[in-house]
Amino acid sequence: MNSTIETILSHRSVRAFENKPLSKKTVDTLIQCAQQASTSSYIQAYSIIGVTNPDKKKALAELAGPQSYVEENGHFFVFCADLKRHEYIGKREETNVIPSLESTEKFMVALIDASLAAQNMAIAAESLGYGICYIGGIRNNLEKASELLQTPDRVLPLFGLCVGLPTKDTEKKPRLPLHHIYHENTYNNNEEVIEGELREFDEIVSAYYAKRTNGKRNQRWSDQMASMLKDPKRSYMKEFVKGKGFDVR
Amino acid sequence: MNSTIETILSHRSVRAFENKPLSKKTVDTLIQCAQQASTSSYIQAYSIIGVTNPDKKKALAELAGPQSYVEENGHFFVFCADLKRHEYIGKREETNVIPSLESTEKFMVALIDASLAAQNMAIAAESLGYGICYIGGIRNNLEKASELLQTPDRVLPLFGLCVGLPTKDTEKKPRLPLHHIYHENTYNNNEEVIEGELREFDEIVSAYYAKRTNGKRNQRWSDQMASMLKDPKRSYMKEFVKGKGFDVR
Repeated sequence: MNSTIETILSHRSVRAFENKPLSKKTVDTLIQCAQQASTSSYIQAYSIIGVTNPDKKKALAELAGPQSYVEENGHFFVFCADLKRHEYIGKREETNVIPSLESTEKFMVALIDASLAAQNMAIAAESLGYGICYIGGIRNNLEKASELLQTPDRVLPLFGLCVGLPTKDTEKKPRLPLHHIYHENTYNNNEEVIEGELREFDEIVSAYYAKRTNGKRNQRWSDQMASMLKDPKRSYMKEFVKGKGFDVR
Repeated sequence: MNSTIETILSHRSVRAFENKPLSKKTVDTLIQCAQQASTSSYIQAYSIIGVTNPDKKKALAELAGPQSYVEENGHFFVFCADLKRHEYIGKREETNVIPSLESTEKFMVALIDASLAAQNMAIAAESLGYGICYIGGIRNNLEKASELLQTPDRVLPLFGLCVGLPTKDTEKKPRLPLHHIYHENTYNNNEEVIEGELREFDEIVSAYYAKRTNGKRNQRWSDQMASMLKDPKRSYMKEFVKGKGFDVR
């Protein structure tokens, strides 16, 4: 155990922040940390948009939920898959890079690159005593988010990251027990095993909610998942992503 | 600056490891760190396969390159997008979750979830003095990788992560200057700016390679990118991903 591992293991999402801007120095440190993450074949296929304009923050907070903590925080970052500069390189070097940029493979690369960078930023922020919360909610309406951030084709906003000083303590949320998600050498695809695991985790999650809400909430994880997954969300995504030049072929 | 940020900023990929297994305790700590990463709506849409069987490691090393460090390391992890248990929940709770699981949105969620987890593991490993290297090369042949790891439908191996004690020092690789990838409020899509930035970074990268190779290699980043992107790689990916039940609709 060391302080980095302590930071990582203490993670909880924070949804209430002091509305006090991070210093430029801190913002720069967080971005540098993000950038030092691994990147597939040195492609660096992402960009980060810091949103400081109050009207834009308000509009993003609206479309993401509404989620007030998108508006009120220390800094709000939006991570984007970005192959724009690579498109420009193709044009400049007279090389047809389009089939490559539009491949599902490069869509995956850009998503993975952006996420590795974001998690570096999250850990760095938490190590400095800030709280963080990822905002997948900006994908509720990427048309509108792209318009607000003026992202061109080949740039796709993926998620936001709120960083700031927490104003409320939140509790660490249990994860699937280690042996549920970790396999050795071969994937264990046995329905009896999965059934047993679900029962085990359902109890853990019920107990967690019961404790957190003084017995008012008592939801199993599998109920939560079934209810979340019964209606497909953001079904415009496939067409939108393609329209932006990703995952086309 | 603190030790976590120092760890993050000191990252370099390591491609030569002592071939000495990590202790079970260390492996467990790394997995716990991975699991504590944020997860979209608590979905936990990933799994991790540790590969310890020498024949499997050899086969994966072959198909990934060959890359000898996939075979020789302290531990080799494969991160997978995983919606298998969610499919099972749907069946058990008599809820039709398939359209949701097969959406592009959930494909993105699973990729992001898996990547955030992986980067937590990478940082945790580095904080303990290990080196790491991501292995996108397993995507050279996901048919074969899936067969080796016996991953079923709704499970998609994404990348590997080698962890181990470095046997060689490697140099930190420069990243795009901060202002190239960081925008404020709106994305700056100006070709003159991009051109200037590329020239700036090309010089940085040329100087880096020249220094590292005693003047033998002198490649610009934009040349490297153009040459990498001129032929689409892994063009089977779109169909393969769909065949596994991801990104279908």
